Amino acid sequence: MTSDRGQLFVLSAPSGAGKDALLYHVLRACPDLKKCVTVTTRQQRQGEVDGVDYRFVTPQQFEDLRSADALLEWAEVFGNFYGTPRQWVLDQLAEGNTVILKIDVQGGQAVKSLYPESVLVFVAPPSVEEQERRLRERQTESEQDLSLRLSEAAREMAAMPEYDYVVVNDDLAHASDLVRCIVRAEGCRVRPPRKG
Amino acid sequence: MTSDRGQLFVLSAPSGAGKDALLYHVLRACPDLKKCVTVTTRQQRQGEVDGVDYRFVTPQQFEDLRSADALLEWAEVFGNFYGTPRQWVLDQLAEGNTVILKIDVQGGQAVKSLYPESVLVFVAPPSVEEQERRLRERQTESEQDLSLRLSEAAREMAAMPEYDYVVVNDDLAHASDLVRCIVRAEGCRVRPPRKG
Repeated sequence: MTSDRGQLFVLSAPSGAGKDALLYHVLRACPDLKKCVTVTTRQQRQGEVDGVDYRFVTPQQFEDLRSADALLEWAEVFGNFYGTPRQWVLDQLAEGNTVILKIDVQGGQAVKSLYPESVLVFVAPPSVEEQERRLRERQTESEQDLSLRLSEAAREMAAMPEYDYVVVNDDLAHASDLVRCIVRAEGCRVRPPRKG
Repeated sequence: MTSDRGQLFVLSAPSGAGKDALLYHVLRACPDLKKCVTVTTRQQRQGEVDGVDYRFVTPQQFEDLRSADALLEWAEVFGNFYGTPRQWVLDQLAEGNTVILKIDVQGGQAVKSLYPESVLVFVAPPSVEEQERRLRERQTESEQDLSLRLSEAAREMAAMPEYDYVVVNDDLAHASDLVRCIVRAEGCRVRPPRKG
């Protein structure tokens, strides 16, 4: 569906790979990229702006969106729900814009099965140790949450081969340059003629 | 064959698309890229350095290389022969280096059929008018040569869909950034597991 229109990119990462900071840098380097604001039921963290970082909703509001088929994909992660507003994405693509979704690993695979032409980018932590250090630094989770996230992260790493690209987030400037390169390169790709 | 080793890039363009100047800029931006020196029987142009821009050989020397199977691909273009030294490319890839070949459109397709994992980049002129202007500016060809090159260029443009990427050479800085991005992005690509 994206053949003659905008391109759809998905940025996914296990917890602690540093995808939020990375995306921030990528958006500065690619001002034409449109970032989708995820709908979530999770608690707003300090510094987060509603409607910019996430759209914070109640579980009931989320359920309403879901039953109205208003979410392109959704997932439950550690008891919280996250979803991608379908109409916003479709509108952006129809306008020929390049869209980037920041979603979890299961969501990435869901988008790929819906839109095979979407481009999936997996952000990998430089090492397991660094990943744990970053999660501890965040200080927003209890020790139990942390342990859950770490085991989930290990499981998520296994999804890497399903992705189109892997960027190791060793250094923010380097990693964001690579994501920018992926976006620019995909813009030059010769696409096979549309079928049907 | 390139799975666990270096990557092979091919830069092709019809005459007058400006691929020489573009490659010069790309090599400055990607100092790790290894440029293959093409063997040719064509006359050395002013400013060209033997062994750097091309390796200039006699028709007999070329024929010897060809019959010794020392050329990865070769082609005759306007009565001159051009070939890619096979061993040099294999050695570079075995060392894990990223190699770029500047070859004509038919040569690009030959490399792709030999090495399906190679990445083909087609450099397109911004317009037919600009292409003709560049060819005239070069002042190294007679009017008859020019006319031949222009009709050949039109034929070569038809090969574009066989390439992986197309970069329009409208502005050198912009186009060379895009080629650099393609090289960097391909370095992040998740490759399917090797067969056999």
